[in-house]
Amino acid sequence: MITPILLCGGSGTRLWPLSRKRFPKQFAQIAGDSSLFQQSAQRFQAAAFADPIIVTGDMFRFIATRQLAEAGIAHAAVLIEPDARNTAPAILAGALHAAKSNPTALVLVAPSDHLVPDVEGFRAAVEMGRPAAEAGQIVTFGIRPERPETGYGYIKIRSFDDALGAALVDRFIEKPDVEVAEQISSDGEHLWNAGIFLFRVDILRDAFAHHAPEVLECTQGALDTAEEDLGFLRLGTEAWKTCPDVSIDYAIMERADNLCVVPYDGAWSDLGEWNSVWRELHPNADGNSTSGPVEAIDCSGSLLRSESEGQVLVGLGLKDIMAVAMPDAVLVAPRDRAQDVGKAVAALKKAEYPQATDFPRDNRPWGWFEALAHGSRFQVKRVYVHPGASLSLQSHHHRAEHWIVVEGTAKVTVDDEITLLSENESVYIPLGSVHRLENPGLLPLILIEVQTGSYLGEDDIVRYEDAYRRK
Amino acid sequence: MITPILLCGGSGTRLWPLSRKRFPKQFAQIAGDSSLFQQSAQRFQAAAFADPIIVTGDMFRFIATRQLAEAGIAHAAVLIEPDARNTAPAILAGALHAAKSNPTALVLVAPSDHLVPDVEGFRAAVEMGRPAAEAGQIVTFGIRPERPETGYGYIKIRSFDDALGAALVDRFIEKPDVEVAEQISSDGEHLWNAGIFLFRVDILRDAFAHHAPEVLECTQGALDTAEEDLGFLRLGTEAWKTCPDVSIDYAIMERADNLCVVPYDGAWSDLGEWNSVWRELHPNADGNSTSGPVEAIDCSGSLLRSESEGQVLVGLGLKDIMAVAMPDAVLVAPRDRAQDVGKAVAALKKAEYPQATDFPRDNRPWGWFEALAHGSRFQVKRVYVHPGASLSLQSHHHRAEHWIVVEGTAKVTVDDEITLLSENESVYIPLGSVHRLENPGLLPLILIEVQTGSYLGEDDIVRYEDAYRRK
Repeated sequence: MITPILLCGGSGTRLWPLSRKRFPKQFAQIAGDSSLFQQSAQRFQAAAFADPIIVTGDMFRFIATRQLAEAGIAHAAVLIEPDARNTAPAILAGALHAAKSNPTALVLVAPSDHLVPDVEGFRAAVEMGRPAAEAGQIVTFGIRPERPETGYGYIKIRSFDDALGAALVDRFIEKPDVEVAEQISSDGEHLWNAGIFLFRVDILRDAFAHHAPEVLECTQGALDTAEEDLGFLRLGTEAWKTCPDVSIDYAIMERADNLCVVPYDGAWSDLGEWNSVWRELHPNADGNSTSGPVEAIDCSGSLLRSESEGQVLVGLGLKDIMAVAMPDAVLVAPRDRAQDVGKAVAALKKAEYPQATDFPRDNRPWGWFEALAHGSRFQVKRVYVHPGASLSLQSHHHRAEHWIVVEGTAKVTVDDEITLLSENESVYIPLGSVHRLENPGLLPLILIEVQTGSYLGEDDIVRYEDAYRRK
Repeated sequence: MITPILLCGGSGTRLWPLSRKRFPKQFAQIAGDSSLFQQSAQRFQAAAFADPIIVTGDMFRFIATRQLAEAGIAHAAVLIEPDARNTAPAILAGALHAAKSNPTALVLVAPSDHLVPDVEGFRAAVEMGRPAAEAGQIVTFGIRPERPETGYGYIKIRSFDDALGAALVDRFIEKPDVEVAEQISSDGEHLWNAGIFLFRVDILRDAFAHHAPEVLECTQGALDTAEEDLGFLRLGTEAWKTCPDVSIDYAIMERADNLCVVPYDGAWSDLGEWNSVWRELHPNADGNSTSGPVEAIDCSGSLLRSESEGQVLVGLGLKDIMAVAMPDAVLVAPRDRAQDVGKAVAALKKAEYPQATDFPRDNRPWGWFEALAHGSRFQVKRVYVHPGASLSLQSHHHRAEHWIVVEGTAKVTVDDEITLLSENESVYIPLGSVHRLENPGLLPLILIEVQTGSYLGEDDIVRYEDAYRRK
C-alpha cells in the first residue's frame, strides 16, 4: 500500500479574491462541486492507497478535517506545521511520520491544490512508478507539456531506463523565459515538474541525511516533540523554528542521483493563477469561461466568475478580460496580468483592506459565521453550527446578543439556565452573562445573531471552557 | 418669479447597476453627496424662483418628497403621472398646473438628472432669457459644444437678436453621426439641446393648441380630473391614457416659430451613460475616475466605482474599461460600449434576473428595507423607519417575524398590545397576528427583522390601515 502525503499548508493569493490567506485555494471550489483538497484526497481513495497523511497549518486544521469528513474520508493523520517552512520540511515530516508504522513505507507526496481530471490515468502512472520506488529510487512525475508554459519548472530527461520503468533525470530547470519555453516544451526531452513524488521513506531519509542533514535534524526534532491535540499532531515548535525555509526541489531533487521520472500524458494544472483557471474550465466557442450568475454579452477570451448566487456579473464587449466578483471584493484585469494578482493583493494589504486576507465566511472548529450587516453599535451575523458541535462557554464585556434560530435545533446555556430552541424561537444573551451555544441535533443549526453594544470586536470574549482547546 | 418644473419620472437603465427601474439615476448619488434630483431642485432655491412643481411617477413619489425634505425644500407641488408619456404631456401638465395660480406665470422646465456644476452661471443664463420669455418667446438653452458629441441633439442657430437678447433658431438636429458631429460641433452655429425651456404658460398653451391640440386636450383633461392624495396631485388616469407618447421637441419645438435660444457656456452633462460619468468626474492624471473603496493598479482611462463601503474593487492593468460594483450586481465593459448598457439590462431582464429592475434598497413611504440574507424558510432584513413614520397595520398568513431594535425607538402593536422598544430590545410577531411598526421618535429607527415561514413573498400581506393609502 502507498501512503499519500497531502500538502495543504499554503496560502496563495494569485487566485484572489477566491483564495485568501485565511481560506486559500486548496479549500475553495474552483472546478467542480468539491474543493481541490477534497478532489486530491479522493484521488487516493483506492485499494492501492493507505489512509492519507495531511500536512497543514494551524489556521486550516478544522477546515481540513471538516472537508475530509464531507468527502467521506474517515481516517487521516493530520500534522500541523507551527508555521509554513516550504515543502522540504513538510514532506519530510510526513514521511518520518509514515516511517513510524513502517520504516520502509512507500509514500506518494502531492500538492492538494492542483487539478488532475483523469483519476484513473493518474493512478496508473503512480503504479508505473512503483517498481522504481520500491527499488530505492525517488520517482517524480513529469507532465508532457501542452504548450510553452513559462509558469512551471521543467525536468530534462535522459534516456528511458527499461529496468526501472522510468526515465533518468538530466536536470531540473527553473521557470524559463518565453524563448526557452518555446524551445524546450516541444523537444520531447522536457517535462513539467508537477511536484509529485513517490519514494520509500527510508530512501528519503537517507537523501536528507546526505544532502540536507540540518533539515532532517530539526524535522525529526519537531516530530519527536510533537503533541497530540484533539486528534491533530502538532509538530514541536522549538525544533520546527530552526528549520530552514527550503523547497524539496532545492534540498533534494536537484542533488540526489537516485532520481527518475515517470512521464504523465494526462491533463494536469497547478491552477496557479486565474489564466490557468480560465484555460482548464473549458472556455466555450467564444473563448469565455464562466461560472455563477453571469451574463457575457459580446465577450471573447474572458473569464467571468460570480462566486455568489445573489450577485450577477455582467460582462459587455470584453476581450481577454478576467472578472471575479464576490459581495465583498471584485477583481478586474486583463488575463495576461494574471501573474500580478499577488502584487495587487499586497497593495490591498498595505492599504489595510481586510479583504486582502480575510474571507467573508469565517471558519471555526464548530462551523462558521459571516457578517450580514453592521452599524456603529450593532452587528448581524449568520451563524452555522455543525451537528454535534459546540461553541465555547463564554461571556462578553461590551455586547449583548439576540439569537434567532432559523434552521435546526439549538441548545442554549445562559448562566444557570439551559433551553432547547427550535426554528422560529429566539433567546436573549445579556451583556456579561456566561453562555454557550450547542447543536445537539443531527442536522445543521443556522441562527441569526444580532449583537448590540459599544464594542463588537471578536476579541471581546472570555472563554471558560472550549471543546477545541482554544484560548 | 419663475416657477421651476422638474421632470423626474424617467427610469433610464444606461447607468445600470446604479440606475434601475425602481430607483433611477435622478435619485442616485452619482456626483457629490446629494442626488442629481436634489442638486437640480437646489439649483432653483433662490429669490428669483417660486416653489418648484415636480412631475414624477407613482413609484417615485415618496422618494421624491423624501429627497426634497432632506435637501431642505419644504414646499413643492408634486404631480403624479399615471404612467410615463414622454416629455410633452409632462411639461404641459406642469405648466397648466402653474397657470392655475397665475395664467401668465413664467416657468422654467428642466430635467432632474443632468449635471450643471456652475449654479450661479446657470441662473445668470436663465435671467438672460427672461425678457424674451416675458415677450412671448419659448426660450431654450443651448450648450456650447465641448467636443463632437454624438449622444446629444443639436440646435442650429441663426442670427443673434439684440432686441430679444437671444439667438433665433434655425432648426433642431437629431443625434448626429460622427462625421456630422465633427463638422457642426465647432462651427459656432450649433449648440447642444439640453432640454431646458423657459416660457410663459399661456404661450405654451397656445403653442400646444396650435401644434398639438390632442395633447392639450388630454393633458388638460387629466389635470381637470386630478385628485389630491396625501398632498400629491394624481393626474386623471382616464384622460392621461389617451395622451400620445410624444416629446416636447417633436410636439412643439420643431414646429413653433416663436422660439429662441440662449447660449450657455458653462459645463453641462446629461450623464446619459457611464462614459459621460467618467468624463464629468474629473479623471486623474492616468485618466482614471474612481469612487468608493477602489484600488486602481496600472490602470488608465478607466472608470472604477464601488458603490458599497464593504466591497473593494480592484482594477489591475485596465485600459479604457469601466467597472461598477454593487453587492448584488457588477458591470464590466470597455468605456466605448457605454451606450449599450441598456441592451445588457434588457438581456438581464429576459433572463429574469431581479437585479435588472430591482434595487437592493427597497424604498417605501415610511423608509426602506434591504435583504441581508435568505434561506429556504427564512429571510433577514434591515428595516429603516423615518422619524414619525408608520408602517401599515397588517398581518401575514405564512410567516412569523422577530424584530430587534438596533437604533432608535419603536412603537409596536401586536394584536391588542402596544409596547415601546428601545435599542437592544426585541419582539416576536406570531403568524396571523395583527401588527404595526411605528417610529414615534425624532431619530431614525433601525431594526433587524428575521422572518420565518413557508412563504416569504412581499405579497403575503393583509393591510387593515395604512397612512399612505396603499392597498
